[in-house]
Amino acid sequence: MTDWRLGALAESLGVELRGDPERPIVGLQSLRDAGPEHLSFLANTRYTEALRQSCAGAVLLRPSDLALWSGDALLSDNPYAAYARASHLFDCRPPRPPGCHASAVIAADVVIGAGVHIGAQVVIGAGAVIADACVIEAGCVIGENCHLGPAVHLAPRVVLYPEVRLGARVRIQSGSVLGGDGFGFAHTGRGWQRIAQLGRVVVGDDVDIGANTCIDRGALGDTVLEEGVIIDNQVQIAHNVHIGAHTAIAACVGISGSTRIGRHCVLAGGVGLVGHIEIADGVHITGMSMITKSISAPGSYSSGTAFEPSRQWKKTAVRLRQLESMAERLRRLEAQVSELQTTAPK
Amino acid sequence: MTDWRLGALAESLGVELRGDPERPIVGLQSLRDAGPEHLSFLANTRYTEALRQSCAGAVLLRPSDLALWSGDALLSDNPYAAYARASHLFDCRPPRPPGCHASAVIAADVVIGAGVHIGAQVVIGAGAVIADACVIEAGCVIGENCHLGPAVHLAPRVVLYPEVRLGARVRIQSGSVLGGDGFGFAHTGRGWQRIAQLGRVVVGDDVDIGANTCIDRGALGDTVLEEGVIIDNQVQIAHNVHIGAHTAIAACVGISGSTRIGRHCVLAGGVGLVGHIEIADGVHITGMSMITKSISAPGSYSSGTAFEPSRQWKKTAVRLRQLESMAERLRRLEAQVSELQTTAPK
Amino acid sequence: MTDWRLGALAESLGVELRGDPERPIVGLQSLRDAGPEHLSFLANTRYTEALRQSCAGAVLLRPSDLALWSGDALLSDNPYAAYARASHLFDCRPPRPPGCHASAVIAADVVIGAGVHIGAQVVIGAGAVIADACVIEAGCVIGENCHLGPAVHLAPRVVLYPEVRLGARVRIQSGSVLGGDGFGFAHTGRGWQRIAQLGRVVVGDDVDIGANTCIDRGALGDTVLEEGVIIDNQVQIAHNVHIGAHTAIAACVGISGSTRIGRHCVLAGGVGLVGHIEIADGVHITGMSMITKSISAPGSYSSGTAFEPSRQWKKTAVRLRQLESMAERLRRLEAQVSELQTTAPK
Repeated sequence: MTDWRLGALAESLGVELRGDPERPIVGLQSLRDAGPEHLSFLANTRYTEALRQSCAGAVLLRPSDLALWSGDALLSDNPYAAYARASHLFDCRPPRPPGCHASAVIAADVVIGAGVHIGAQVVIGAGAVIADACVIEAGCVIGENCHLGPAVHLAPRVVLYPEVRLGARVRIQSGSVLGGDGFGFAHTGRGWQRIAQLGRVVVGDDVDIGANTCIDRGALGDTVLEEGVIIDNQVQIAHNVHIGAHTAIAACVGISGSTRIGRHCVLAGGVGLVGHIEIADGVHITGMSMITKSISAPGSYSSGTAFEPSRQWKKTAVRLRQLESMAERLRRLEAQVSELQTTAPK
Repeated sequence: MTDWRLGALAESLGVELRGDPERPIVGLQSLRDAGPEHLSFLANTRYTEALRQSCAGAVLLRPSDLALWSGDALLSDNPYAAYARASHLFDCRPPRPPGCHASAVIAADVVIGAGVHIGAQVVIGAGAVIADACVIEAGCVIGENCHLGPAVHLAPRVVLYPEVRLGARVRIQSGSVLGGDGFGFAHTGRGWQRIAQLGRVVVGDDVDIGANTCIDRGALGDTVLEEGVIIDNQVQIAHNVHIGAHTAIAACVGISGSTRIGRHCVLAGGVGLVGHIEIADGVHITGMSMITKSISAPGSYSSGTAFEPSRQWKKTAVRLRQLESMAERLRRLEAQVSELQTTAPK
Repeated sequence: MTDWRLGALAESLGVELRGDPERPIVGLQSLRDAGPEHLSFLANTRYTEALRQSCAGAVLLRPSDLALWSGDALLSDNPYAAYARASHLFDCRPPRPPGCHASAVIAADVVIGAGVHIGAQVVIGAGAVIADACVIEAGCVIGENCHLGPAVHLAPRVVLYPEVRLGARVRIQSGSVLGGDGFGFAHTGRGWQRIAQLGRVVVGDDVDIGANTCIDRGALGDTVLEEGVIIDNQVQIAHNVHIGAHTAIAACVGISGSTRIGRHCVLAGGVGLVGHIEIADGVHITGMSMITKSISAPGSYSSGTAFEPSRQWKKTAVRLRQLESMAERLRRLEAQVSELQTTAPK
């Protein structure tokens, strides 16, 4: 159902209403794009000007921002979280019906719970366990002895290698690969000897994983994502990485082997971490930073340089390589000035 | 057909011939690798030495470069574009025949145009529309209500989530995912609340997308690629990004949510852009640069540092962190020298 | 078989035993996690403290480290390589049985060797040759005229475009795409003209390729990986790249078109290389470095900056853009001091 009255919406979201409970709301929109039939939201005071100009039928906002808006409103101390809840009320994609498509290839001993949807061309290996209410979309491949908790959702073409464990309500977008062999090789003097990767991938409840992301199985022991971790697209998580609960990892991040990341961390897009380090709880790393050592205190960390017009940037890059000699010239000047000060007339 | 005479080639490419129209040409090659049976090209004067040494049977070049080459030639003001057109004449892979493989799983109400090829194991959801002359290769999954314009080509194992719109002649390489859920979560204080992603992906005519690239659907409103955009492999385009016509995006680029990129821009490999910024038309960003603010003027922009032997780089990295104190020492020296100048004998 | 006696293990690995040949060993573990039933290893003297505290039943170590450990031991000059060999003895995943799943779609003229496993939903195009003992797991798509050497292993959902050549024992993880069209376009003044990619991908013996990696086919001529190259996940290798034997490429690396990399190189995670350059044998590039020019001498190379707390980093970033003026101020000071020295009382 996507046709709501504002009063019913307020009730469903558990927020206070100011205005007309009978106002019809057909969807959500940004302040800029909303019309009288839409609910919008103000989560950031940067957008107060957009609020002033908005044609939205109603707006989710903080009680303290109510003075900025004379129209119908829904009041919440966390309007962005209320919008997040509201978004699901307007998601009109039909749920996948229970049942198993005839083209799926499922080993005889797979245990499948109640209400499970298995799409076309899915392949499930022996010994797998699929709990109630899972949705396995078209073309997924689930290896032997994988265990999926209740209400797991795999989008089309996800691959789980054997023995992956997924907690309840885990969601994985298309093209992601969990449990692939880690990049483990010993140098023999002549070349590389591959190391069999004997561990698993273990994923906690309510973890959300984007598209075309890779999470390798452990070499010895497991690669672990604790509950509530959220991971974007194109992320690479190497063998034996451990990620603490509720940590958020944006797109294109790469985490090298055996690194441990704390709880409630945020890694912005394109960040890279070397292997075998530890990141404390509550660390925030800004975009495209390279982290080469453990971080023991919460807070925000960065590397890299600000961008410039390429012409200036080239000059800066040259100067950068002269820093050593600039420091040497500075030392010499200090000695000379000190000498001059000694001999200067008072 | 890949056996040509030089005269027929000239006619087909619409360029002027100098030399023997009867010369047989069996393929294209670089100046270095070409033999008498090959056509090569000179697009960049950096390669004039290679031209001098080339054994090519004929060369595509500018009329102004004709003095550099005494053999058979095809003349064009844009020899690289002429080579691009010629390349298709020597592409001998047979076209995919019309028809639908028996193993494909296609919802009953899908509308399929004339001359469409649908490969093995393809899955197409209800309400999809596939226009004339599309090629859908093996293992693609096309969600409900997707619309594909005429002559779209999907390589094996592309995933389109529901409601993706592709213009005419769009080409997508294997493993790419369009329409996946954007990385949208609200923080609730305890953890992350997912935001349903209600928008679509809308792709204009003649867009070309590489392999294992991700383009997320909009949260509210659409993610949009205008006509003629070209995108390489492993690119990440987040929800509600808007990319202007004829912009080129090289491999491993990541573009964060709601960022708008102008027309005729070039993003080199590995570039990252934060969210909610605007990039003007005609901006060029060099490889691996991080763009953290809007850019309002066309031109070239860069960040990062030049590479060095690691030993020197370590010294530079240490010095970099001393920049603040170097600046302070510089200030002090200037004051001291100014003081000395005052008291110095004239 | 994963139940071993220590003596049998020593014999199988070709290493010397010190201690009880009858000790049962059920698996491998790290020094920290090992119990009396496990074999562990000391490959790096950083871990001698972990060795002292380990409960491992036996440890693989160098003869020179024997004094550090009083328990049962296996002696090797390269304990990490010995551990790598041992890992395969404890890999209890059953081998894929020979045979072809009924759901696979295989062109009539495909040549399939002895002992080949072809999984569910696999698609193989006309003219392909699959040598003895290959394993093609579920959902792979192999294009026309591909040639796979003996004992190639493709994990689920690998895509090979037509005409890819794989040497003996090549292994490819899930989601990787070999032979996709390179990013080749000519600018016509109005937009981009695609260039047909007419070359192939040619992969030597014993190459190992991770998950969701892309290796594009050549434009003219081939993209080549020599024998023994190892490549991690999410790597991008553009058209006509040439990689020398036994080079290791970690995750998220991007290599632009026509670049040549030597033998025995190591590219750490997130490294980027521009196109048309040459990297000598034995070059090591540290994580996330950007390589913009050819490198002619072996050794280690780096770019980028060390990370800092974001607050300090912002100051450094501002100072960096003042380097040009700092250099100018330094020059002026030197002139002034020199002048003062001339006139100073002796």
